[in-house]
Amino acid sequence: MTTANVPAAQTASAAHAGSEAEGFPAERLFATRRQSLALTDHLSDADQTVQSMDDASPAKWHLAHTTWFFEAFILRDHMPGYRPYDDRFFYLFNSYYENEGERHPRPYRGMITRPSADEVRQYRAHVDGWLEKLVTTSDEALARKLAPLVELGIHHEQQHQELLLTDILHLFAQNPLKPAYALEAPRSAPHAAPADTWSSFDGGIRRIGHEGGGFFYDNEGPAHEVLQRPFKLADRLVTNREWLAFMEDGGYETATLWLADGWGTVNREGWRAPLYWLKRDGAWHQMSLHGLRPIELDAPVCHVSYYEADAFARFAGKRLPLESEWEVAAAGLPLKGNTVGTGELRPLVAGHASSGPRQMIGDVWEWTASPYVAYPGFKPAAGAVGEYNGKFMVNQLVLRGGSCATPEGHIRATYRNFFYPHHRWQFMGLRLAEDA
Amino acid sequence: MTTANVPAAQTASAAHAGSEAEGFPAERLFATRRQSLALTDHLSDADQTVQSMDDASPAKWHLAHTTWFFEAFILRDHMPGYRPYDDRFFYLFNSYYENEGERHPRPYRGMITRPSADEVRQYRAHVDGWLEKLVTTSDEALARKLAPLVELGIHHEQQHQELLLTDILHLFAQNPLKPAYALEAPRSAPHAAPADTWSSFDGGIRRIGHEGGGFFYDNEGPAHEVLQRPFKLADRLVTNREWLAFMEDGGYETATLWLADGWGTVNREGWRAPLYWLKRDGAWHQMSLHGLRPIELDAPVCHVSYYEADAFARFAGKRLPLESEWEVAAAGLPLKGNTVGTGELRPLVAGHASSGPRQMIGDVWEWTASPYVAYPGFKPAAGAVGEYNGKFMVNQLVLRGGSCATPEGHIRATYRNFFYPHHRWQFMGLRLAEDA
Amino acid sequence: MTTANVPAAQTASAAHAGSEAEGFPAERLFATRRQSLALTDHLSDADQTVQSMDDASPAKWHLAHTTWFFEAFILRDHMPGYRPYDDRFFYLFNSYYENEGERHPRPYRGMITRPSADEVRQYRAHVDGWLEKLVTTSDEALARKLAPLVELGIHHEQQHQELLLTDILHLFAQNPLKPAYALEAPRSAPHAAPADTWSSFDGGIRRIGHEGGGFFYDNEGPAHEVLQRPFKLADRLVTNREWLAFMEDGGYETATLWLADGWGTVNREGWRAPLYWLKRDGAWHQMSLHGLRPIELDAPVCHVSYYEADAFARFAGKRLPLESEWEVAAAGLPLKGNTVGTGELRPLVAGHASSGPRQMIGDVWEWTASPYVAYPGFKPAAGAVGEYNGKFMVNQLVLRGGSCATPEGHIRATYRNFFYPHHRWQFMGLRLAEDA
Amino acid sequence: MTTANVPAAQTASAAHAGSEAEGFPAERLFATRRQSLALTDHLSDADQTVQSMDDASPAKWHLAHTTWFFEAFILRDHMPGYRPYDDRFFYLFNSYYENEGERHPRPYRGMITRPSADEVRQYRAHVDGWLEKLVTTSDEALARKLAPLVELGIHHEQQHQELLLTDILHLFAQNPLKPAYALEAPRSAPHAAPADTWSSFDGGIRRIGHEGGGFFYDNEGPAHEVLQRPFKLADRLVTNREWLAFMEDGGYETATLWLADGWGTVNREGWRAPLYWLKRDGAWHQMSLHGLRPIELDAPVCHVSYYEADAFARFAGKRLPLESEWEVAAAGLPLKGNTVGTGELRPLVAGHASSGPRQMIGDVWEWTASPYVAYPGFKPAAGAVGEYNGKFMVNQLVLRGGSCATPEGHIRATYRNFFYPHHRWQFMGLRLAEDA
Repeated sequence: MTTANVPAAQTASAAHAGSEAEGFPAERLFATRRQSLALTDHLSDADQTVQSMDDASPAKWHLAHTTWFFEAFILRDHMPGYRPYDDRFFYLFNSYYENEGERHPRPYRGMITRPSADEVRQYRAHVDGWLEKLVTTSDEALARKLAPLVELGIHHEQQHQELLLTDILHLFAQNPLKPAYALEAPRSAPHAAPADTWSSFDGGIRRIGHEGGGFFYDNEGPAHEVLQRPFKLADRLVTNREWLAFMEDGGYETATLWLADGWGTVNREGWRAPLYWLKRDGAWHQMSLHGLRPIELDAPVCHVSYYEADAFARFAGKRLPLESEWEVAAAGLPLKGNTVGTGELRPLVAGHASSGPRQMIGDVWEWTASPYVAYPGFKPAAGAVGEYNGKFMVNQLVLRGGSCATPEGHIRATYRNFFYPHHRWQFMGLRLAEDA
Repeated sequence: MTTANVPAAQTASAAHAGSEAEGFPAERLFATRRQSLALTDHLSDADQTVQSMDDASPAKWHLAHTTWFFEAFILRDHMPGYRPYDDRFFYLFNSYYENEGERHPRPYRGMITRPSADEVRQYRAHVDGWLEKLVTTSDEALARKLAPLVELGIHHEQQHQELLLTDILHLFAQNPLKPAYALEAPRSAPHAAPADTWSSFDGGIRRIGHEGGGFFYDNEGPAHEVLQRPFKLADRLVTNREWLAFMEDGGYETATLWLADGWGTVNREGWRAPLYWLKRDGAWHQMSLHGLRPIELDAPVCHVSYYEADAFARFAGKRLPLESEWEVAAAGLPLKGNTVGTGELRPLVAGHASSGPRQMIGDVWEWTASPYVAYPGFKPAAGAVGEYNGKFMVNQLVLRGGSCATPEGHIRATYRNFFYPHHRWQFMGLRLAEDA
Repeated sequence: MTTANVPAAQTASAAHAGSEAEGFPAERLFATRRQSLALTDHLSDADQTVQSMDDASPAKWHLAHTTWFFEAFILRDHMPGYRPYDDRFFYLFNSYYENEGERHPRPYRGMITRPSADEVRQYRAHVDGWLEKLVTTSDEALARKLAPLVELGIHHEQQHQELLLTDILHLFAQNPLKPAYALEAPRSAPHAAPADTWSSFDGGIRRIGHEGGGFFYDNEGPAHEVLQRPFKLADRLVTNREWLAFMEDGGYETATLWLADGWGTVNREGWRAPLYWLKRDGAWHQMSLHGLRPIELDAPVCHVSYYEADAFARFAGKRLPLESEWEVAAAGLPLKGNTVGTGELRPLVAGHASSGPRQMIGDVWEWTASPYVAYPGFKPAAGAVGEYNGKFMVNQLVLRGGSCATPEGHIRATYRNFFYPHHRWQFMGLRLAEDA
Repeated sequence: MTTANVPAAQTASAAHAGSEAEGFPAERLFATRRQSLALTDHLSDADQTVQSMDDASPAKWHLAHTTWFFEAFILRDHMPGYRPYDDRFFYLFNSYYENEGERHPRPYRGMITRPSADEVRQYRAHVDGWLEKLVTTSDEALARKLAPLVELGIHHEQQHQELLLTDILHLFAQNPLKPAYALEAPRSAPHAAPADTWSSFDGGIRRIGHEGGGFFYDNEGPAHEVLQRPFKLADRLVTNREWLAFMEDGGYETATLWLADGWGTVNREGWRAPLYWLKRDGAWHQMSLHGLRPIELDAPVCHVSYYEADAFARFAGKRLPLESEWEVAAAGLPLKGNTVGTGELRPLVAGHASSGPRQMIGDVWEWTASPYVAYPGFKPAAGAVGEYNGKFMVNQLVLRGGSCATPEGHIRATYRNFFYPHHRWQFMGLRLAEDA
């Protein structure tokens, strides 16, 4: 998933998706393209234009940059006769690809009131038209060659769909009127979170990382063996109720619970609760995609930083899981959960039906204790597409499992998302672990 | 004119406009209100929403804040049965009136994508409707009482009309596409600036400041005597051609030409030319309300700071005029010039017809050497309207004469505008003076 | 007096001191040189080396820079055969003279642990030796030529003597041990401040600025006429008791008392009392050159900014005097007061003996309402000595009258000191004025 | 080794050193105490007082803080009748132990000109006197109990000895006179670095971390198994000659060689060479403890950040070693090298005598690719001594092997030093690795 500065691991060498790439994944391509529009159709021109912080980008920029991606990496190089919609967009909508030349500085993305949201849609239509032409005119050899790039473009766009949601939430949260992005779906009766049960896992040599067919980002490989120690993993996410207990017990005021850098951040920023929490009439509320809503005590806590997650784990006498532990635990589970397809757009109270780890997929990205580094033997792909695949592998932590804002079909057990330890604006939460 | 932090001297005690206030200036009121809309009707929702720097405000905010002014100071207090359009706007659209309560922080004005530009127009219509009702229902006593406040509201809105233009120019200048705010009016053939002639003025005791009838801001009074020394004033503004000579002579690299604070600013900011100047294909251009245009050599230099104006004057072996000198020189002249009414929206080459000081009114605000301080005997007005009339009287310099963005009828010989010495985004230039 | 960035008006054209300059003022020169050493002899090497903020300089630097001044402007140019003590000191100890070449950046003055304090004394002795040789070997023509420069060097060094005291106070104030610079002189019994009486002054044309014989800085001239209005001036300085009343009445929490820039500063800096005030065991103390001492209620308030002085005046229903008013009031008074010669090194309670304005000379520099600008007809002197005489004439305010840290013989009724409105670390206070 | 904010892993539970702790290590204690004085005896009071950046501390502070450590953790708790030298030092010289109460803010350590360097020596003598009394009066049970704490105090003081050297180097580097800390030892004839040979290591399960007897910090444990892959390690450190080739090949200007955060840092800071490098008369020099010296091409490169080390490795087509790889390679080697005991105080050209990995101990700390995190099963010790043992385990990278400034007997194969990736002021360099 894209980080703040760094719409991250969008690159993949052809090899990764090669086995399935017998032709264009045209249907998924255009479905993904339509989905981006569906996410923004009800937003105003202004909503789509404003940038609320350096880490965030305007919705319009996400729409244009994902289009630029197809233009820059596919149409320009592989479509004879392609005419760009506007040459200047090449500068405007590059994100961070140094090899692709100069680009508009990130903190000024919100200054671009022109082209308008409507014109960006025309730009999208222009590129989509050429992509359709490409689909119909490519011979089999070209289709085989381009399929991995198209696949990459699909996943890249999905990543930006999630960012678009987190960024619009951040923007709306700055507005004292606290507008809602979405009407809330009708809810079933509220229910209590299940009890705090744990699953145990044996130690031994385990294999993690992606292998076999299907698309994956190159940071998910190479698959390799790790020496795992026995561990236990909580069967559900930490809840708002548990977080409130931490707050009321002085969690944010107790230096000994925190990493030194975390304690510095807490005091410099004045953190006393998760992001978007505020008290109205004596009761805690949280800004959400449905506007400002009372805290739901049994739902997973969301919008906490690594520093907070780590402090909470220490407070609870536990620890955060390693990414390898999380992956081993997730390996056998179905890739189902509260992702964008449920339409909820908020983390949900865990269900009671199943046993074992719940909420592994969706709801909130789960902070792990693992710094984001290269897997052994990792080699970045060549060229501009894979130009910078390792360049974010410092200062960030791995998160796993996807969130309520993650597009359908985008998440995998091997998927490695990464953010800086002070970041809070993604749908981020935590699950506890401990040594067995 | 309103400065960055400080939409300045919008307040006036009733007394100032009292003599003419025999009733509502209803016609001018609604004409002014319509003019604000006319300035923005062709701007998109996004254009009207984005804030390009802390010193600037979104166009939509200007439209809403000037409306808030009538709501806060007239309708709420004097119109029985008035129902606010939306109570929350009172917080959102206050600028800096401490007595009027809490307000949305200035640097976050650009986060307010809702209410939309359309809804702000509805808000304006709502308030205008009530103002019309007030006009028709007030008896003579009430009309006489409210007239000065309405007059103040008109002038306040005019100030914001000029700011709206300077702020939209700043926003568009951040956009690599350099969009134009206005289509350029057809031009007559270019002509050369008149020669560098000077007018002489005797010394002696002179009276400056506003007295007599008509509206004025309280910082223009009390009228008082000053002891003037003989001086000479240039008959026209400094031109781009002259400024280029300064640049080419190393003006921006010569420490001894600069005030120490100016030299520090030049180096910290990397200034090497006026604001909005940039070189394209080897030729100097300047961003303007008509987009990026080649420098017109005979037109007045525009968008220079006090530091630059002062350095230029030293380079030229002259000085900037005192505000009292400027006022004495302007006293007898007609209040005509290149203000908004010409439709030019850019400073023009001086004409050749007249003799004596030209371009005193309009084209560019002229930096004076006078710090902005209280006139002797100045007393701020009581209450929220006049709450802070003196509170900007430190760290700023006086500018005189209005600009090509100043509304018709808004400028006077006694008018004192003020900005910080590093400010450049207003339509600011200079005229030279020297001791006689 | 030298400001933070700007050891200010150290320059003077020969003309200013010409009439008395019939030869070297050798006796005063060496007395001044010795006095600098006397001020620092009891300080440790470390005390003399550390820089406690950008605005302050180490004591050792003051000792070296004042020596550099004689080397750079007299010995190098006028003493054949002069051998510098160390060529590198020319770079190290220049303050801001652009014409004299590159210099060590101001914020790094505190990094210079070598040369040691002892070696700086050797450097001083070296230069003093050559100055003595110059005195004995110059013929009358040379002496006449150099005398104004020597005179300037004396006054320059006196300015730095005062800065040295304010800077060492600032340094010691950062130390939790609150060391004392000086043992306190034995005090007479405390007495109450005299009553709050006022002196009245007529209006009319008055002459201010320096003229006639004796040394003066060029910013004190040209002498010129001003049109004065009738005014009243308080006979004594504002006291700590009066300041406490301001504090207890919510002065620091009342926005309407403050200039907008002042209010911003108060809140950004968290000011709630003058600089160096802190509460110990429930009672207000102030760090001083004698260490941390209880507030003396009847003594003048000290270490307040212009913003605070202005707010206090508004609170009191008065105003600050103009510099011309202060000068007219001081014109006839003896140049006597609590300056360094009394050995007190702190502002004293006003005496009761005299009538009319007291404490005009010494105790604390008095903020005026006058921005620091050029007098009419001011022309900076030519060359490096007078290189930048006007370059500080923006953004600062004039203070008058000298302080308890001002060297004997250094202050005049025409003397114009200047600092930024947020500055507090000098011995600064205020006297009230009002329109008559 | 202590980091900037974080005099790091100074804590150890008694258990770590228990097996050897049959009594006070009195001889080593007092030898260590004397060594601290020996390192500073030739420094002036000012040299010992100034703080040249937030990350560094004054020499005097190191001398006092290491003394405070014995006072706070041993004398106060375990020596009946102990009288502190000065109660206020407890506040002044605490570093970051939250449980030990408030402390003087780190960035203000350089303001403490009093107590003087001499008085800090008296403070040391006072505490040493009481420590001697403790040695002679403790019975065996108390000695056994205190021995681990004394041992910890020794190692803590050794860490600060190294920091004292790196911090004084940083201070002297800010001085344009570039003073030398030490006279250079007589050198043997310069020789070329040995060829670029590599040693190979098999994969498999290996055991790392400290176990068995002897002192170690708790972050070196628990000892545990890791699954190692086959790898190769360069037999010597990267040299200045190799670094110059990187520079001359545009290493600092080639975005694709850098981690994104590194590239941002390079450009923000303007890095174009290692810290302390500067060109004089066309030739590269580097500031060192012996003053400014010409670069020795065959010596190890020193004062490079992790970002630079990582970029160099990419440039070379290699990678940095993991800390476990380094430890496995170092496991069998003697703990001998160019540490403080050689008296060189600079990294030396590698020798030719041996085969296999050279320079593993001493010369420069070697950046590894391993983020500094807890070993599996790590539990911080209880109480103030071990209060914060894990609190630095985020955002930093592990370095191994000690440097030319590391005290004799302080380094181990299991020793984990850690710094932020932008840090350069320690004696830091690199050794390359690659997959076998």
